[in-house]
Amino acid sequence: MITGQHYIGGHWCGEPQSTNTSFNPAQNAALPWCFAEAGQAELHSLTEQASAAFALYRYVTASARADFLDTIAAELEQRKADIVSSMVLETALTAARAENELGRTCNQLRLFAGELRQPANDCNLPALPERQPLPRPALRLAKMPLGPVVVFAASNFPLAFSVAGGDTASALAAGCPVIVKAHNAHPATSELAAQAIAAAADKTAMPAGVFNLVHARQHAFSEALIRHPAVKAVAFTGSEQLGMHFQRLIWQRPEPIPFFAEMGSQNPLFVMPQYLAQHTESFASQLAQSVLNGCGQFCTRPALVFLPKAAQAVKAQLITLFSQAQAGAMLTAKIASHYRSGCLALQQTAGVSLLAQGQGDESGCYTRPRLFACSANTFMQQSVLQQEIFGPATVLIECTDVTQMQMLATILQGQLTATVYATETELATASALLQELALHCGRLIYNQMPTGVEVCAAMQHGGPFPASTDSRYTAVGSQAVQRFLRPLCYQNFPSQNGDTA
Amino acid sequence: MITGQHYIGGHWCGEPQSTNTSFNPAQNAALPWCFAEAGQAELHSLTEQASAAFALYRYVTASARADFLDTIAAELEQRKADIVSSMVLETALTAARAENELGRTCNQLRLFAGELRQPANDCNLPALPERQPLPRPALRLAKMPLGPVVVFAASNFPLAFSVAGGDTASALAAGCPVIVKAHNAHPATSELAAQAIAAAADKTAMPAGVFNLVHARQHAFSEALIRHPAVKAVAFTGSEQLGMHFQRLIWQRPEPIPFFAEMGSQNPLFVMPQYLAQHTESFASQLAQSVLNGCGQFCTRPALVFLPKAAQAVKAQLITLFSQAQAGAMLTAKIASHYRSGCLALQQTAGVSLLAQGQGDESGCYTRPRLFACSANTFMQQSVLQQEIFGPATVLIECTDVTQMQMLATILQGQLTATVYATETELATASALLQELALHCGRLIYNQMPTGVEVCAAMQHGGPFPASTDSRYTAVGSQAVQRFLRPLCYQNFPSQNGDTA
Repeated sequence: MITGQHYIGGHWCGEPQSTNTSFNPAQNAALPWCFAEAGQAELHSLTEQASAAFALYRYVTASARADFLDTIAAELEQRKADIVSSMVLETALTAARAENELGRTCNQLRLFAGELRQPANDCNLPALPERQPLPRPALRLAKMPLGPVVVFAASNFPLAFSVAGGDTASALAAGCPVIVKAHNAHPATSELAAQAIAAAADKTAMPAGVFNLVHARQHAFSEALIRHPAVKAVAFTGSEQLGMHFQRLIWQRPEPIPFFAEMGSQNPLFVMPQYLAQHTESFASQLAQSVLNGCGQFCTRPALVFLPKAAQAVKAQLITLFSQAQAGAMLTAKIASHYRSGCLALQQTAGVSLLAQGQGDESGCYTRPRLFACSANTFMQQSVLQQEIFGPATVLIECTDVTQMQMLATILQGQLTATVYATETELATASALLQELALHCGRLIYNQMPTGVEVCAAMQHGGPFPASTDSRYTAVGSQAVQRFLRPLCYQNFPSQNGDTA
Repeated sequence: MITGQHYIGGHWCGEPQSTNTSFNPAQNAALPWCFAEAGQAELHSLTEQASAAFALYRYVTASARADFLDTIAAELEQRKADIVSSMVLETALTAARAENELGRTCNQLRLFAGELRQPANDCNLPALPERQPLPRPALRLAKMPLGPVVVFAASNFPLAFSVAGGDTASALAAGCPVIVKAHNAHPATSELAAQAIAAAADKTAMPAGVFNLVHARQHAFSEALIRHPAVKAVAFTGSEQLGMHFQRLIWQRPEPIPFFAEMGSQNPLFVMPQYLAQHTESFASQLAQSVLNGCGQFCTRPALVFLPKAAQAVKAQLITLFSQAQAGAMLTAKIASHYRSGCLALQQTAGVSLLAQGQGDESGCYTRPRLFACSANTFMQQSVLQQEIFGPATVLIECTDVTQMQMLATILQGQLTATVYATETELATASALLQELALHCGRLIYNQMPTGVEVCAAMQHGGPFPASTDSRYTAVGSQAVQRFLRPLCYQNFPSQNGDTA
């Protein structure tokens, strides 16, 4: 059932290598699936096929693209059992999480399909031949797809930000063929999703090459793909380090192209004293849940919690919750090792104390949750506290008052989200803090944890650098399609509504 | 009346230098106005003032911003006589052109004001507390201004793409303070426009520093400005060489920021045989007018004309028109010298012939119009033909048929515009050509010259690289404001319509 092959131009191809196996992080053992490794030949055929597909796919009507996306969702649902079990094996995430993420992925595809079925909102200005001093020609502003899009799948959302995830769905909705570089942490799950897309493309008679999947462990392949002249946009979800490496490669291209990287975030929470006094227990349990869920492997988990110095009750509760938590398997040994070395660096930072850590062994992919604390002054002085540690850790920053919180907010880096917990009375007096936070984030939240990203027309999942490479775009929600479209003005054509070109 | 000073934080400042005079290109002589030269002190105060202004200007209501823009237009109109005479002296453009451009500049400001008076179209999704499996929080997607914007004024539109031009108008409409680097070709005209904006800012009680003007002949100052952390976006109109130099500096910043450069274009025309046979004279005179007007100093003048080999009548007419044309003064001696060396390189290219050139002397800023011709094969072989020569020159490329035109279209670089001249019958058979051209331009035109850019909601003035640095944005029309805005999602706030932050 798992071929281990690439999917290029409508065909499965490539020789699975016995060295490229999938991996079970919970068991710390190889899985029986092997995968092919792309090289020069695949680079050539992928870019040829995606370009050839673009010449056809750009004319596929919006309603046919909508049918394609809906059919992908249906095909994913048909493969639900296989996808869920493969994802559980490859990621150590729970079956419930996998099912939930599959549902979200399908909803996401259907959201874009629904948008495509709305009437196009081209701006249409009729000619004004009598206007003085000069007549106005008829003008129509339409949107053009950019061309073949490369998608780098995320490690932490094997479905919703991966092969059939938001980047692919929005690029296909825009009219762009897609080349997905599968994430090495879940190649079998990636292939199953690709099988669903391939089946949907067949059923809806989409051009060969409209969707392609490639496996490559060597960075050199990804780099060559990014540099290729046939590629017209790139979407990426992952670390700032790799995201900026890819960004620099794109800046070296003779033709610069749009690159949207969502590079994670610390998602600060600012908690007001009265709110905390009234909701000590529920806040502590919500925070622990938001940090610990899925081993903290969410770009929106809260890693910085600014709270009143006097809040000893919540601190005690959090210490209990983190101490009782069990070590869990992260997605890969590399991610787990980064997490552990990040925590170690924090623990060794002057002024930072480790308040609690979870139970169990930390070898291989397994890591223990950790709760840290520091003073406002330490936060100001130690820049290491503004480096994201991907995983189940959070830092409590003890502040004297709201004014100090507001001051700390001014030095925050760009964030995906920022959250204020406050009573309605406190909220009314926190406007300066909110106004400051608005400068630093893409989503501003009141009294809710930042994990859980609603997929809808009003979502912004992006933010000021380094949360993303371009704060004007989003990776989630219907506006995500704008990353892959450009305006084209038609002037003086006889039928302004006709599909002249 | 001309102080020669910078305008920073609501004050005129700086010592005019006797060496930094304004220049009269028609007379090849210095004008009596001297200008200050910015250095480290100005860099500091400009960025301080613009940042301080942003802290206030981001809360100025849309309707107050609209009043500000309308008042700028009124103040410009009040200074019309002075602005026109200064512009004529500094640019050798005609008074009629200056008046026309002033009108367009005012219309542009009023267009953005009108848009600001429309109700905000934030996407507002109410909470769905009963939704299964999870409730939906209330979500509102608003737009945030990016922060202080640096505008590099254009040489060739001293009003419409300069101090009070489209970049400034759209940044101010977005809620961003502006720092304009005046173009050295028209510093007095720049100061007069700045005086109008300063008066309007006073009358409408805008924060000091919302608009700033700086004079600097040294590139080092512009480079330092672009690198400054307080600057959050840059807009530029000019050459590809300088635009890409600035782009590379921005890519080296620790925090990358949006940069929109409109870097010119060759604006190819494709002319069908039947159309040409029926409109030989009118086409020749429209083309000559479009190339020669204002010494060809338009980013949308047509510099490549693909036409049937057999079209000897139109060729003869164009030879007559170009031969009779007089040499004219370009904006600066440097621009004139670039034009002449570009024409010389073309003339020395194998397969390119100089069909005609205008009358008169070519020294100083004066240049003669030139008409070149080559075969389709030469166009394919000589890449120099795809280098823009800014000025009154155009190349006729003689093609055997539409199929050959279509093939040549595939190798075109990114363009601001592409135009097809055809009878309605020919248009119906030219769809493959139109479809190819749509990939290469931001505006596709039927039977009209590309010069003359309508300022409206349906305009796209930008295009695939190297016409602009980002094909997803426009420098002209109401969508130009999108360059300086980013989405911000408000989640779960009690009053989703209130201005919480």
